[in-house]
Amino acid sequence: MAMRRSHVIRYALEQYKSYRVPNAAQSLPSWYTKGTNGSLDSWSRCVHGSVALTQKKAGRVPLSSERFPQLKRGDFARVTDGDLQVFERLVPSRVLTEPGDIEGHNVDWSGTCRGAGQVLLRPKTTEEVSAILRYCNGRRLAAVPQGGNTGLVGGSVPVFDEVIISMSLMDKIISLDEISGVLVCQAGCVVDKINEALEPHGLMTPHILGSKGSCQIGGNISTNAGGLRMLRYGNLHGNVLGVEAVLANGDVLDCLSTLKKDNTGYDLKQLFIGSEGSLGVVTAASVLCPRIPGAVSVALLGCDSFAQVLQTYDAAKKMLQEILSAVEFMDRASMEVVQENLQLTCPLGAHRYYLLVETSGSNAAHDEEKLNSLLGHVMEKAMVDDGTVATEPSKVQSLWALRENVAVALRADGCVYKYDVTVPMSRFYDLVTDTRERVGSDATRVVGYGHLGESDIHLNVTCPQHSEDVFDALEPWVYDWVAKCKGSVSAEHGMGILKRDYLYHSNTGPAVLLMKQLKERMDPRGILNPYKIFPD
Amino acid sequence: MAMRRSHVIRYALEQYKSYRVPNAAQSLPSWYTKGTNGSLDSWSRCVHGSVALTQKKAGRVPLSSERFPQLKRGDFARVTDGDLQVFERLVPSRVLTEPGDIEGHNVDWSGTCRGAGQVLLRPKTTEEVSAILRYCNGRRLAAVPQGGNTGLVGGSVPVFDEVIISMSLMDKIISLDEISGVLVCQAGCVVDKINEALEPHGLMTPHILGSKGSCQIGGNISTNAGGLRMLRYGNLHGNVLGVEAVLANGDVLDCLSTLKKDNTGYDLKQLFIGSEGSLGVVTAASVLCPRIPGAVSVALLGCDSFAQVLQTYDAAKKMLQEILSAVEFMDRASMEVVQENLQLTCPLGAHRYYLLVETSGSNAAHDEEKLNSLLGHVMEKAMVDDGTVATEPSKVQSLWALRENVAVALRADGCVYKYDVTVPMSRFYDLVTDTRERVGSDATRVVGYGHLGESDIHLNVTCPQHSEDVFDALEPWVYDWVAKCKGSVSAEHGMGILKRDYLYHSNTGPAVLLMKQLKERMDPRGILNPYKIFPD
Repeated sequence: MAMRRSHVIRYALEQYKSYRVPNAAQSLPSWYTKGTNGSLDSWSRCVHGSVALTQKKAGRVPLSSERFPQLKRGDFARVTDGDLQVFERLVPSRVLTEPGDIEGHNVDWSGTCRGAGQVLLRPKTTEEVSAILRYCNGRRLAAVPQGGNTGLVGGSVPVFDEVIISMSLMDKIISLDEISGVLVCQAGCVVDKINEALEPHGLMTPHILGSKGSCQIGGNISTNAGGLRMLRYGNLHGNVLGVEAVLANGDVLDCLSTLKKDNTGYDLKQLFIGSEGSLGVVTAASVLCPRIPGAVSVALLGCDSFAQVLQTYDAAKKMLQEILSAVEFMDRASMEVVQENLQLTCPLGAHRYYLLVETSGSNAAHDEEKLNSLLGHVMEKAMVDDGTVATEPSKVQSLWALRENVAVALRADGCVYKYDVTVPMSRFYDLVTDTRERVGSDATRVVGYGHLGESDIHLNVTCPQHSEDVFDALEPWVYDWVAKCKGSVSAEHGMGILKRDYLYHSNTGPAVLLMKQLKERMDPRGILNPYKIFPD
Repeated sequence: MAMRRSHVIRYALEQYKSYRVPNAAQSLPSWYTKGTNGSLDSWSRCVHGSVALTQKKAGRVPLSSERFPQLKRGDFARVTDGDLQVFERLVPSRVLTEPGDIEGHNVDWSGTCRGAGQVLLRPKTTEEVSAILRYCNGRRLAAVPQGGNTGLVGGSVPVFDEVIISMSLMDKIISLDEISGVLVCQAGCVVDKINEALEPHGLMTPHILGSKGSCQIGGNISTNAGGLRMLRYGNLHGNVLGVEAVLANGDVLDCLSTLKKDNTGYDLKQLFIGSEGSLGVVTAASVLCPRIPGAVSVALLGCDSFAQVLQTYDAAKKMLQEILSAVEFMDRASMEVVQENLQLTCPLGAHRYYLLVETSGSNAAHDEEKLNSLLGHVMEKAMVDDGTVATEPSKVQSLWALRENVAVALRADGCVYKYDVTVPMSRFYDLVTDTRERVGSDATRVVGYGHLGESDIHLNVTCPQHSEDVFDALEPWVYDWVAKCKGSVSAEHGMGILKRDYLYHSNTGPAVLLMKQLKERMDPRGILNPYKIFPD
């Protein structure tokens, strides 16, 4: 039995050599390679496509103020011609008011939320952000900071007529210390561009995301983005060494330390990591950057029970330890959607679950030996039913493409309801099973994929078009389900507008009270990204 | 030349096989082994010795209120017999008032600070801590939480008559999830004891410190302790997943998430990491625990210029990558003090600088191959002048002993002035050189050692006894020096009472203002660990 399974691996490996993903070179993310000059990854293209799309179809996305009629506009001033003249003085020629210019910035990536912002400002410096906020605060004008606008909870677009502060022109690398690996840059730097700058020095960002071609480091920090390398390099609370932020009143808070250790008073920068721009606008950051690994390998494994999935994950942690860099999960429905909607080919047969195990290290031969040991072990112990391995970069990318393109593939079904939540490992897949049972044949698909290493499941439900029945079946049921098993209703992206009503699902009353006190203390007029995070 | 150097390594390695550290088995830390049942490491023994010492010699340590006459007692109530009766009801039989019982808790480990606390409470549960603080807040009684009392800035002892809340009886492990590696425990758990509990599951704490035999996880969190594994596993901001804390008014803040990803509102637990018990008393924590590595190797290298030190560090980062777990630094004076005062033997000859490079991984043969490649490279490129390697646990411990015993050895000189600061890598050793020049022959020794990987230097100056001249030469000069090069005046331990006057040295005015606002918001009556962190 053990031998047969080992043979399966070898056979799959052979088979893999001739296996091709259509247009792999253009469509696949290049995780550890030389930047993406001219070749945006699939998500990025999708985001860009989406912005183009929303500019044409924005009218079809209902206004958030209509979609959520319970929301009332706050007691903020409305932008006047006089305000526009002041803005023009503060950021000359970088005040946009043409509807065509700002429509894409009013609609979020998922096409779920649409604000009615009428002015977009494009500062280039911290001083300009400071001047803008000082003025807005004085005038009581609400403002929403916007990075790459790739969030999925409507956190980076206005709800009513908030002033949009786009960070896109704040895209300068300030410094890089090659020995310590510390990068300092402005908040509007796109992650791909940062990696292009780091690559000649053998360094990379500690986090990487599907949206890396569009998302900005400031937005990543403001939402505490985790992404695909978190298993290996940890979260941004650990990797961000310093933050410069502009407070609501325009004061510049310079906590832009580049030191790995600094325990002098409260660690204020942590306040801005994950607070969705509601306590201050992040204008610059210093980030600890790890070295680009010399070798990357990926195994795609098929399992027919969830117990096998957990056993395999445990074995991977034990046997790969320091070289384990990702353990990603897909169910059969996820694999089917990339095959059906994007014509990608899976080198394995049909299985109930798939695991993508990535290793990265400094010595290819060592890593391969460790990975082969693991594969031998999991096959012998019948933890997996089939598997294939890739070490050549293009093959590695092809396997990653299967996982990375799920989100894109799902869009082709029509309407997608997306839930990015964390649940205890033992309940990881129950959420999908229970949802499938609940929505039944009303949905085209119910799929589950995500970051197994962080117990972060992406539950996605598709329909040909928006269905009130499906939506009502899903919400708040999904969030109630997550809360019942002590999960988090937001693994990534934060609360924004779409999840704000569920803040108490993952937080106690005293915790929310303290959050509100901090908000009131730091933004007494409530001008920074209002209507988000907190339920009424 | 290259060959000769390679020969030196081989020769040193041979020589090492017969090299013995006296009483190694008892006196050496066991970094990755089966706990320390009955064998406290040198620091722990020193701490314990110190407590015993201070109980006898406490009278010799001047009262902090006398040493810092500018300090005025706050407008707090004084403990009355009525208060003692209430405390006795809240924590029956765990109210200590005998001077002999609490003297050791009034004096800090370094014997620098002495408070005049007259009552010590020993809660066992969060509810008891809550009841204590609710009462203290109502009565306006100041309180200082105390963990293992191993800090070096006087942060964990009273200044005047603050009520001491000892966390030592809150030492229960609450849960351990072996698959996710998440431990939940009470704040008073000693790090060594936690590691004893983790070891059978193949797990360990992400941080380890010289004081691990005495220091408590709650104190580690409250001071954001980094220690020796930070290069590999990152800091506590990244590894602490949840915190339960009691606020000044007695409210229990339950942020004890065990999820790796949870982005639902502000990450409140971060407020308690590094705030020295001044915003709340940490009562429990959940911590992400890595696996115990299967293999550990250590190389001790000698360099004769600081440029070589930096080149070697850079080469180690590049060539060891995922298995590099520590890069520690000692200068010649540090090596001399462990030889002279503790009769330890160094297997290398005299060099200006020494580096201790540790690797840890899952495959001993792979790690050894990588380490040997590095050693061949640094010898060939003349980055180091001599070196030796150890892979056998007792030899690894013997090499670590040289580095770990510097602090203990220095105490034998008499009086030690200790500065734990971070400076940019390029200025790392200049601080020692400049200090040596400044204090001249007034000092017995001026030594520099520390965590090179975090640019954290421990500057220590010794004299036979306290010398006002030496002290006046050192302070505030050292802190001014650090501030001038944008370093941090506190790499570890926080500000406490000893560094509070230098808070502005590493923070801007707006940052300190915001810290004070947070303090006022969360502890409006200022009862939690007063007199610490902030200058008057």
